[in-house]
Amino acid sequence: MKTIFVAFSLLFSSLIFSQSDEAVLKTIYTQSLTNGQAYSWLDYLSNQIGGRLSGSINAEKAVKYTKAELEKLGLDKVWLQDVMVPKWERGDKEVAYYETNNKKTNVNICALGGSIATAKSGLIANIIEVSGFEELKVLGENNIKGKIVFFNGAMQPDLIHTFEAYGGCSKQRYAGAYEAVKLGAVGVIVRSLNLRQDDFPHTGSMSYLDLPNEQRIPSAAISTNDANKLSEALKNDKNLKFYFKQNCKQFEDVKSYNVIGEITGSEFPNEYMIVGGHLDSWDLGDGSHDDGAGVVQSMDVVRLLKQSGIKPKRTIRVVLFMNEENGLRGGKKYAEEAKRKNENHVFALESDSGGFTPRGFSFDCSEANLNKVLSWEALFKPYLIHYFEKGYSGADIGPLKNDNIVLVGLRPDSQRYFDYHHASNDTFDAVNKRELELGAATMTSLVYLFDKYGTSNIADIKEIKD
Amino acid sequence: MKTIFVAFSLLFSSLIFSQSDEAVLKTIYTQSLTNGQAYSWLDYLSNQIGGRLSGSINAEKAVKYTKAELEKLGLDKVWLQDVMVPKWERGDKEVAYYETNNKKTNVNICALGGSIATAKSGLIANIIEVSGFEELKVLGENNIKGKIVFFNGAMQPDLIHTFEAYGGCSKQRYAGAYEAVKLGAVGVIVRSLNLRQDDFPHTGSMSYLDLPNEQRIPSAAISTNDANKLSEALKNDKNLKFYFKQNCKQFEDVKSYNVIGEITGSEFPNEYMIVGGHLDSWDLGDGSHDDGAGVVQSMDVVRLLKQSGIKPKRTIRVVLFMNEENGLRGGKKYAEEAKRKNENHVFALESDSGGFTPRGFSFDCSEANLNKVLSWEALFKPYLIHYFEKGYSGADIGPLKNDNIVLVGLRPDSQRYFDYHHASNDTFDAVNKRELELGAATMTSLVYLFDKYGTSNIADIKEIKD
Repeated sequence: MKTIFVAFSLLFSSLIFSQSDEAVLKTIYTQSLTNGQAYSWLDYLSNQIGGRLSGSINAEKAVKYTKAELEKLGLDKVWLQDVMVPKWERGDKEVAYYETNNKKTNVNICALGGSIATAKSGLIANIIEVSGFEELKVLGENNIKGKIVFFNGAMQPDLIHTFEAYGGCSKQRYAGAYEAVKLGAVGVIVRSLNLRQDDFPHTGSMSYLDLPNEQRIPSAAISTNDANKLSEALKNDKNLKFYFKQNCKQFEDVKSYNVIGEITGSEFPNEYMIVGGHLDSWDLGDGSHDDGAGVVQSMDVVRLLKQSGIKPKRTIRVVLFMNEENGLRGGKKYAEEAKRKNENHVFALESDSGGFTPRGFSFDCSEANLNKVLSWEALFKPYLIHYFEKGYSGADIGPLKNDNIVLVGLRPDSQRYFDYHHASNDTFDAVNKRELELGAATMTSLVYLFDKYGTSNIADIKEIKD
Repeated sequence: MKTIFVAFSLLFSSLIFSQSDEAVLKTIYTQSLTNGQAYSWLDYLSNQIGGRLSGSINAEKAVKYTKAELEKLGLDKVWLQDVMVPKWERGDKEVAYYETNNKKTNVNICALGGSIATAKSGLIANIIEVSGFEELKVLGENNIKGKIVFFNGAMQPDLIHTFEAYGGCSKQRYAGAYEAVKLGAVGVIVRSLNLRQDDFPHTGSMSYLDLPNEQRIPSAAISTNDANKLSEALKNDKNLKFYFKQNCKQFEDVKSYNVIGEITGSEFPNEYMIVGGHLDSWDLGDGSHDDGAGVVQSMDVVRLLKQSGIKPKRTIRVVLFMNEENGLRGGKKYAEEAKRKNENHVFALESDSGGFTPRGFSFDCSEANLNKVLSWEALFKPYLIHYFEKGYSGADIGPLKNDNIVLVGLRPDSQRYFDYHHASNDTFDAVNKRELELGAATMTSLVYLFDKYGTSNIADIKEIKD
């Protein structure tokens, strides 16, 4: 069965693009590189608005700004979709030091998103280093009780895909407090998820899961340089004291929005293809790579389609999701509404891996649809787009998953991404205009091809086989 | 004939690597990413030494430093190869402005390498904009005589390979003065070869070719932002005056060195494979990308071979060439000596396109050797190395060209390269450690494979055919 199907799809695939497609891709890339708007949008979002944490005034400004900009593009429809989001505030800049032999050494930390504050005067305690949850459990309550736990698991540098290295230790950030508190810990310090050795602490979301309020302990990230220093100091002095102070706070949920723009399809208006990024960001930098880049690239996809004279057969939506970072409420809400309205989403593409040189895409879809993409490889080759693999698509579009939909993640070069991710250096100057524009063009090209040739539906394939 | 040969080479190619090669490449990449030395060498070269223009004290320091570092690696031989190089000095920081309606606007310029100085008091004259040599010739002596010529040809932004865009307008920098002086120009201002709009002027070599001394005119580059401003101002005032002052100077040639280290081959010591970059740089920045990166990557190739337990069959040399930027004397000297000693060079790999994420290689070699490389594609795929095309290799290794040698250029991502190239922002902080290390590992892997399997020789192929 599989052999027959593959043979069929290869036969089909050899017919699946024409010379005119080469010309269309050339137009798209040329438009993006000579006349793109992504970079100037990002300039505004980053430098005029700045960090856009869910529920903040900046997030509200970003909603208004991007809606107004989409309205200028002459789309068929632009609207806001209500979504209730968590609101967490960092408060004052955090303070931390360790003390050994009566000498204080200041270190760079930042509260993890969702953490509670320390007492007003801060928290001071012995600190114990662990490489991860396994070591934590081995040490047990006897060693942990009353102490701060220092999760010092480092991202694995020899993994070529840095997101794999991130995945390998992101749970110590997300659930470190939850695991440590079970053994009586009083606080948590987590090594920043950064492959570079530098002084920037990297925030990110953590969760207390089902822990009752009174059991929660404060949790912060420490820069990689300071994690190394602290680890060294601990080797010499197991009784070292660690102090930190943060006054972050969780508020009631507030109302916010996904921002949506649409080009209504000319032939199949009830088939929806979406392209998006997330409008919220962490608060430390201005969220240029995460995910200002994905937002402005997605906006430029619909602009580039129009600019390149493409009239989509299917309905193309740009969706700027709210609250990817600490709740995913926007992505969930969008999928709920799509389901409620019985909208047939056939394709969703997310850009949320930074505005670096695009290398290709990863696909969460059927073999038939992946084979369709593989038949287009030659079209992408002149643009050095070579990566077409099965894999993760994106957090915001994940809730749309079903058997038929093509979920896609843009895959830019990932080597520098975690230098900036969730840190104060994720700023506009770290984004290169051409790299950003190449990403927008690459996304537009895939949208163009899937709109033109359609996606394969499992029901159709079964029919052909029967 | 060709068909038979291709069929033969494909048959051969399907046998050309083994599972153990996969393991070796894994070791090489892991060593480079976890235990690489390239980045710390670059730190020293950039931050402790700095810009290394041929004939300068810094160039001399770089020779000593890299020789000493190679000596620490336990190679079979390390030595210096004498080479006479040109010596040009920039002198004081250049000054320039344009004047319209009695208002002076300062602009950022830098003398082009090899240019003469202006008069001590500077040069002031009308300035006329041209897009290139064709327009210059159309305008002719009537319009040019007594004026400064402003070459404002811009790099073409829609070319994906930025080196093509560079090639498209580098001759206005190199020969602009030569062409302009024929029509009576008194000076030349050239738009910086930079795809970004910013304030950095980019230097680079220019030549007066056969012009006698007394006919030579001063020549400088202007930043892209200021080129745009100047162009706008000229639209409003054709009589605008341009002033610039520079006191650069050409001295007599001085003695310098190529730095060479060697692992002597265990089976075919008389087959030489070299890997290199150029030790000299321009003087404005610290030459981290151009070509500190290539230097330290090449040094790390021989270290990584040893570190990975590889004992080359052929003689592997690392060659750090002097004077690529303004004379190519090192490359020429190395090839002359190789010829004089009748050394059979079968392979040469140059890294001189920046320390960015490697994408692959371009090959100046026979089809048979390129097919050999293509048979190794799957080995490189896990490292996202996908670019294996015919093309330019590198300036320093070019003089070694013959029918049999495999000349190769490392091809890193090129989107950001011209943001830094020959400008004061080509500094250590613009190089990412992982990207640099991936390049070193990619180079080492290709050297390993060509050493193991050998290169194809035209004579051998003919024999098989006969």
